[in-house]
Amino acid sequence: MALKTPDEYRDSLREIKPRAFIGGRKIENVLEHPNTRPTIEVMAKSYELALDPKYEGLFTVPSPLTGEKISRLAHIPTSIDDLVKRRQMNILMAQKTGTCYPRCAGAQSMHFMASTTYYMDQKLGTEYHKRFNDYLRYMQENDLSANQVVTDTKGDRSRRPLEQEHPDFYLHVARKTADGIVVRGAKIGPEGCCAVHELFVTPQTPLRNGEEDYAVSFAMPAGTKGITYVLQDTPVEVERRVTEDIGTLGSPKYGSTSSCMVIFDDVFVPWERVFMCGEIEFVGDLLAKNDAVFTNLCAGSCKVGYMDLVIGAAQTIAEYNGISRAAHVVDKITEMIRIRETTNACAAAGALSGREDPPGSGFFYPDYIFSLVANISTVGFLDLALLAADLAGGAVVTMPSELELKNPETSQYVRKYLKGVASVPTEHRMRMLKLLQHWAAGPEVARVVLGDMPQAHQMLLYAQSQASLEEKKRLAKALAGIDKNQLLV
Amino acid sequence: MALKTPDEYRDSLREIKPRAFIGGRKIENVLEHPNTRPTIEVMAKSYELALDPKYEGLFTVPSPLTGEKISRLAHIPTSIDDLVKRRQMNILMAQKTGTCYPRCAGAQSMHFMASTTYYMDQKLGTEYHKRFNDYLRYMQENDLSANQVVTDTKGDRSRRPLEQEHPDFYLHVARKTADGIVVRGAKIGPEGCCAVHELFVTPQTPLRNGEEDYAVSFAMPAGTKGITYVLQDTPVEVERRVTEDIGTLGSPKYGSTSSCMVIFDDVFVPWERVFMCGEIEFVGDLLAKNDAVFTNLCAGSCKVGYMDLVIGAAQTIAEYNGISRAAHVVDKITEMIRIRETTNACAAAGALSGREDPPGSGFFYPDYIFSLVANISTVGFLDLALLAADLAGGAVVTMPSELELKNPETSQYVRKYLKGVASVPTEHRMRMLKLLQHWAAGPEVARVVLGDMPQAHQMLLYAQSQASLEEKKRLAKALAGIDKNQLLV
Amino acid sequence: MALKTPDEYRDSLREIKPRAFIGGRKIENVLEHPNTRPTIEVMAKSYELALDPKYEGLFTVPSPLTGEKISRLAHIPTSIDDLVKRRQMNILMAQKTGTCYPRCAGAQSMHFMASTTYYMDQKLGTEYHKRFNDYLRYMQENDLSANQVVTDTKGDRSRRPLEQEHPDFYLHVARKTADGIVVRGAKIGPEGCCAVHELFVTPQTPLRNGEEDYAVSFAMPAGTKGITYVLQDTPVEVERRVTEDIGTLGSPKYGSTSSCMVIFDDVFVPWERVFMCGEIEFVGDLLAKNDAVFTNLCAGSCKVGYMDLVIGAAQTIAEYNGISRAAHVVDKITEMIRIRETTNACAAAGALSGREDPPGSGFFYPDYIFSLVANISTVGFLDLALLAADLAGGAVVTMPSELELKNPETSQYVRKYLKGVASVPTEHRMRMLKLLQHWAAGPEVARVVLGDMPQAHQMLLYAQSQASLEEKKRLAKALAGIDKNQLLV
Amino acid sequence: MALKTPDEYRDSLREIKPRAFIGGRKIENVLEHPNTRPTIEVMAKSYELALDPKYEGLFTVPSPLTGEKISRLAHIPTSIDDLVKRRQMNILMAQKTGTCYPRCAGAQSMHFMASTTYYMDQKLGTEYHKRFNDYLRYMQENDLSANQVVTDTKGDRSRRPLEQEHPDFYLHVARKTADGIVVRGAKIGPEGCCAVHELFVTPQTPLRNGEEDYAVSFAMPAGTKGITYVLQDTPVEVERRVTEDIGTLGSPKYGSTSSCMVIFDDVFVPWERVFMCGEIEFVGDLLAKNDAVFTNLCAGSCKVGYMDLVIGAAQTIAEYNGISRAAHVVDKITEMIRIRETTNACAAAGALSGREDPPGSGFFYPDYIFSLVANISTVGFLDLALLAADLAGGAVVTMPSELELKNPETSQYVRKYLKGVASVPTEHRMRMLKLLQHWAAGPEVARVVLGDMPQAHQMLLYAQSQASLEEKKRLAKALAGIDKNQLLV
Repeated sequence: MALKTPDEYRDSLREIKPRAFIGGRKIENVLEHPNTRPTIEVMAKSYELALDPKYEGLFTVPSPLTGEKISRLAHIPTSIDDLVKRRQMNILMAQKTGTCYPRCAGAQSMHFMASTTYYMDQKLGTEYHKRFNDYLRYMQENDLSANQVVTDTKGDRSRRPLEQEHPDFYLHVARKTADGIVVRGAKIGPEGCCAVHELFVTPQTPLRNGEEDYAVSFAMPAGTKGITYVLQDTPVEVERRVTEDIGTLGSPKYGSTSSCMVIFDDVFVPWERVFMCGEIEFVGDLLAKNDAVFTNLCAGSCKVGYMDLVIGAAQTIAEYNGISRAAHVVDKITEMIRIRETTNACAAAGALSGREDPPGSGFFYPDYIFSLVANISTVGFLDLALLAADLAGGAVVTMPSELELKNPETSQYVRKYLKGVASVPTEHRMRMLKLLQHWAAGPEVARVVLGDMPQAHQMLLYAQSQASLEEKKRLAKALAGIDKNQLLV
Repeated sequence: MALKTPDEYRDSLREIKPRAFIGGRKIENVLEHPNTRPTIEVMAKSYELALDPKYEGLFTVPSPLTGEKISRLAHIPTSIDDLVKRRQMNILMAQKTGTCYPRCAGAQSMHFMASTTYYMDQKLGTEYHKRFNDYLRYMQENDLSANQVVTDTKGDRSRRPLEQEHPDFYLHVARKTADGIVVRGAKIGPEGCCAVHELFVTPQTPLRNGEEDYAVSFAMPAGTKGITYVLQDTPVEVERRVTEDIGTLGSPKYGSTSSCMVIFDDVFVPWERVFMCGEIEFVGDLLAKNDAVFTNLCAGSCKVGYMDLVIGAAQTIAEYNGISRAAHVVDKITEMIRIRETTNACAAAGALSGREDPPGSGFFYPDYIFSLVANISTVGFLDLALLAADLAGGAVVTMPSELELKNPETSQYVRKYLKGVASVPTEHRMRMLKLLQHWAAGPEVARVVLGDMPQAHQMLLYAQSQASLEEKKRLAKALAGIDKNQLLV
Repeated sequence: MALKTPDEYRDSLREIKPRAFIGGRKIENVLEHPNTRPTIEVMAKSYELALDPKYEGLFTVPSPLTGEKISRLAHIPTSIDDLVKRRQMNILMAQKTGTCYPRCAGAQSMHFMASTTYYMDQKLGTEYHKRFNDYLRYMQENDLSANQVVTDTKGDRSRRPLEQEHPDFYLHVARKTADGIVVRGAKIGPEGCCAVHELFVTPQTPLRNGEEDYAVSFAMPAGTKGITYVLQDTPVEVERRVTEDIGTLGSPKYGSTSSCMVIFDDVFVPWERVFMCGEIEFVGDLLAKNDAVFTNLCAGSCKVGYMDLVIGAAQTIAEYNGISRAAHVVDKITEMIRIRETTNACAAAGALSGREDPPGSGFFYPDYIFSLVANISTVGFLDLALLAADLAGGAVVTMPSELELKNPETSQYVRKYLKGVASVPTEHRMRMLKLLQHWAAGPEVARVVLGDMPQAHQMLLYAQSQASLEEKKRLAKALAGIDKNQLLV
Repeated sequence: MALKTPDEYRDSLREIKPRAFIGGRKIENVLEHPNTRPTIEVMAKSYELALDPKYEGLFTVPSPLTGEKISRLAHIPTSIDDLVKRRQMNILMAQKTGTCYPRCAGAQSMHFMASTTYYMDQKLGTEYHKRFNDYLRYMQENDLSANQVVTDTKGDRSRRPLEQEHPDFYLHVARKTADGIVVRGAKIGPEGCCAVHELFVTPQTPLRNGEEDYAVSFAMPAGTKGITYVLQDTPVEVERRVTEDIGTLGSPKYGSTSSCMVIFDDVFVPWERVFMCGEIEFVGDLLAKNDAVFTNLCAGSCKVGYMDLVIGAAQTIAEYNGISRAAHVVDKITEMIRIRETTNACAAAGALSGREDPPGSGFFYPDYIFSLVANISTVGFLDLALLAADLAGGAVVTMPSELELKNPETSQYVRKYLKGVASVPTEHRMRMLKLLQHWAAGPEVARVVLGDMPQAHQMLLYAQSQASLEEKKRLAKALAGIDKNQLLV
């Protein structure tokens, strides 16, 4: 089958009918609902660009399984060039939409589960990788999109899964049958579940003996019976729900991606869609590969595209305000560029230093250390957003709604007094301020920084550096003349 | 007359009927409208506390003009003790309401205009200070509240007032008559104009010869004909406007203070309410005093109270999540406390080092250098807010609405899966997360930091340090043995 | 007896003859040795200023014990004004000498032991405070100087005193006799022991049952038999030891203060000089008071004076290089001023908020929280020093010795090519660069920052904030509407 | 000819006899003088490793000119692999010696002059590149080392070369003859001139019409008549000059590299050694390439090796003190690793993204933007050094000399009391502390940070980002819906 057009993609969603709620109300039609439509538009954009000859070879790639041209998002990277292109693709999508496209997260899950299933089959003689390949071929042939479903709700963070008030705070296998497994629990955080065809579920936490039921990975159609979605609801979502003109919003067409809770209320999964079931000793490897992909392609790629948007908005508003040549403006823009380029450099180094893992599998991963520091660099986004807001000034929060421009009682005042330099229409200035409000004075700034968990990755950096730490001690002792107390002639 | 009760205060607003708009619509009743009512509740709280015997002498003070007990907010500080108590009062209000009360800003304006009018009368033989005292007595006797109106809309920031596309980007005197003046222009930024009785207007910018029409200060009733208010409109305001249950909001009762544009469309002011008109050479002194009061009492006081709330919320959510003893949590809470105490220490030093200015006037101001560094320290609020969000985790943005708890189709899921430690109800955890969302993932974080203009104050610090810089050079040269080349025996 | 002149002070040192070593060699005459003389010059400066009528009432004070005019350094503060003046005195000494004067540290020890001995006598009926007062009167009447001796050598930092390889890593009572005690161990860190008349020893660590021998405080003449001093030895000390012209050094006359190890090899102390002996339960109070005094008067005062010197040197060298008006120079100088003023503000707030402790004692201490954040602010010294070095450029480290100016083969080259602006002699530029090298590219920068232990004080800040943290939680819950679930009408 | 052995290298220096001074005295024998010998030892190490079969292909490479195996430092990179290996080589040298080897700087100069001479010949029909290739072949065939000589003394930094007090503050052509040119002026900053065979001189500043005499590049033997070297002299150099046992120094064998002034007192250069003479329009290209090489291979490579040493020393001393498992120690070590890995990642990205420049030349350069952010990341070295010092504690500066261990009067005290954990000899702990003193409490910290000029590179980053800034603005406008006011269906 061919690559889907954006309209074919939208049509394919119509039959899914996920059971989804937001703000205490049911979502009847995800294609029309103001809070789900933006993510669908982002996803449609990714289908559109895959058909654009300009991006041939970037958004598309020949399938190693079928030989057909497929979306790069249904392809497991098999070279450094694949890793580099995957990053470029994500930066481009971020620059054009200013938000996540959930397909990217699903591609991450398929990426690391390709290796983990390969590895399990090698070691255990299981057939997980074969199942996985069948599933991947199905995704490629139908040009389908999956989302990634990982984060457990976790309850009391000081307790292990089985020590909790009830065992469901972490998703687990409730029972097994001849045909498959029944899973129970809830996951939180996946963005845009109403815009994908499939969910791809993996564990989030290293597991111990006795916790085998929590070592479970599987895929299923997003509309499977027993699944309920409860979407996040921030003031930004409320504003979008009630506005009369989405053109007045900060990111009019694509908005913010809406995270959600996914509740699995005893949902059945057939064996051919189960890719891990009880193999606790492989969870660590899976998590490390997940993180390598995440820190490089998410933190280190789409964040770079977001930074481009905020830098561009800051420079534009400085020009609208007539201050773009002031020394402090140049300093701030430069610092924003530095933050952007540092993150990009670390992630680029990660991709360019990628390697096959496990050996013989053919699957490539970015260098983990470089990817970790790329991720940690993204805390700079907070500084970058504040610098942008600071350039723009208090109007980022104190500005009236653009709807006033249609209010006959206020429009002449607002149009007159919110103008900056003479050559720029007030409406342009208000839209650019609203874009900056979206990035710097709303949930986005927290989402970008918190979502990347830089603090957690700081700890991983120590864990990953134990061997190199020993080498560094050896070097210092040699230089200090400690090892062989007669160092010098 | 006696101090007003909260109800008397509310009643006194009923007759004002400001012409106000938000989101493109007219506000018919400021006491009932969801976006104006929160500020009125904050203001009512300040009236309530003034009657509370517990705060006798803190929220109230005997008037030097009448001898009667009046609100401290209608009192010009005449001692270091007055400055210290004014700070304590603002910290307390911030802790209890989490937002501004516009009366405080009006009190700032009256504070510095007391000195500037005194100073003008001394130098010029004018009668501004007499007018000012009459006005102050009127405010005291009627227990009225004024708001501060300062910031011009400014247009092209690279041009002076008279070089703009039109002369109205800065508020100015359009014409003078025997009875008073007619003013035209717009100011932006004052918070809660619909909750006060009076506007107190002062210039924002140092002025040059030829710009005398912009050197104008006056007071007028908030409902004066010709004034239009266009309120800011962020997603947080929209959410409040449409919610079915304000208990689900981040700061349920007091919300955020709503800034606005104030348009003066040829508004008449009688001479007895004019406190400056053309005296460009006194604007510099006025701005410096304004800044000393602002940096100490606003940046250095209410911000400290807000920081208390965010620290308290972070510690609480850490306990709700079961992680309050983890080393990284203790580190983060400690860093938050350090930020809070540094700002507080700088501002406290400013108040405790206050002095009379001008000599003989009896009016006291905080030390300016200490107040400036207090202000600049508030950029730490951004780090503090992020640390709080980081402790709380992604749920700060990804959490569903608390309204789901009333939705029969989702409430059992949400109640079950969003729980933290067993002893805390899910609803409590959701409310605390929403409070953190309010502070760390919405316009508040930008409002707090941008509103204090720490970067601009960094420049003022250099300007204020020229004399001490010369002294420092002298000290360094002496120590380096430069001045008298034979320093040593 | 009268206040000593500088020469009387120097003469009084001649008879002490401490057993001291540096660089592997014995110091024969502390008044002449290049590494001990600078501290003696600093001390002499403090005696000189006490006789200067300009500083009457600042460096001197009437003794509450004798009524005579004494040095403020032999006076226990009994008011806020005393605390403020003590700070001013330390800032002034730091500005004029660029280093510590050990007398100040001894005064700190006497300050907190005044309270602790008072407190012990109140609670235990001991006579420590009477002994202390006799000692203080002796110090006042003879205008003597004591040094502070606190820091134990500590061995394995993961073990308690009695768990160590040997029991002497912490100073302790080896045995008691009818006449006094015999002490053994070593302390490290006191600066300038060869420039004082007395050592004042106190414990450094909270102690537990069984560790009573380590709870010991006493004073003794600096030349007591059994004491050995081993002085620190950095490259800066070596340079001073061998230079032909101290005028070419970074801080020619006063240098750096030389720390040392003080070894007590079974030294006898008579009971009348013992101020604590076994009272482990009072060590905590003693340490807290020690810290309050240290963080305010040391970190928060002399550091401010050092910062003045570095700022002055940076501004001077910028002028010598012809770049003082460049935007980035103004930015850096401003940031340096901000760091200086923040530290100063926090410490000033601490002194101005001082209080009597214990009540009834008459002894005053700075506010501890404000003093802690003053101390933590001093980490900014590192940034300040780097900004200074950055302004000055690579010449701070790459400059040849000023001795080249006396070398006929190189002087014409060095004089010609190391010049900056035409109006400033090369020698002046080289001396200012050398001063900056002293502060920014040598042990001083580490000494200033490490000596103040800002990281340790960050932890103390958390410990001291437990009660206020509970209050903050209460405030946040109230605002979030948690306590009384029906907050709103 | 074959690669030189270390001894052959040393022998080859004997005949050079540079006219050099330090501390006001002449250096008679650079091979024996304590301040020049360390750099010669570092250089000898580089000759040693080139003969080590373990580093075949890393330290050596086949010459494209001769086909013979040559030192990589006499090779112009012609591929990404060459750039990557050049970095690895520098990291390795830095790890093993803890300092610069001046040959590396000379290789940088030859690297960018290869391109600039190629480019000039292409555009102007000159024969600079042919001369350059002859010179390069000479260097390869004789396995010689050159140093880089760039930085002018500059005098009044606010004036151009010809506006100065005299025209020699920037090196320039004093006159031209048929056989060559005569140059006059002084350069400052090159490290280790007494350890190389050749000087390679290039301009430092963009030049304008009329300043042609300053656009000059040439090479000459280091011992050429008319050249005088005046070496830098810090306390660390003085200590090394007078110590009785270099084993007690912070970096015993290799020390710090000694910068110097190089005075050219009318020195003759034959035309075959002149590579630029008056072509002001090519200076900009030369400087950009110089910077790309410098920021990647120096800032982004050797700094990484130094960081390894400091991290290793910090971890070792934490273990010696018994605190390596403490939470704050783990945090600090992790942060140090993060700083190291961020710099390394940025520089690695720069090398891996290298490209040919100018096209057709065959010469490769690292990506400039990535290299710039690598450079700017090195300011982190300052934080890293302080974290190390903080882990080690005050002993980094307060420690006595290791020479005390040989002093019969103090050795038993020092050996006993400066011990840490029982298993580690005191001498080891003292040496490791001295190594940390060398890095964190002496000129090294300033040299590393100042030498890399991160602030200047911050400005270059803005200059280099003008085109991408326009693209960012376009992206932001598209997302805000500004360009085509009807963005949405």
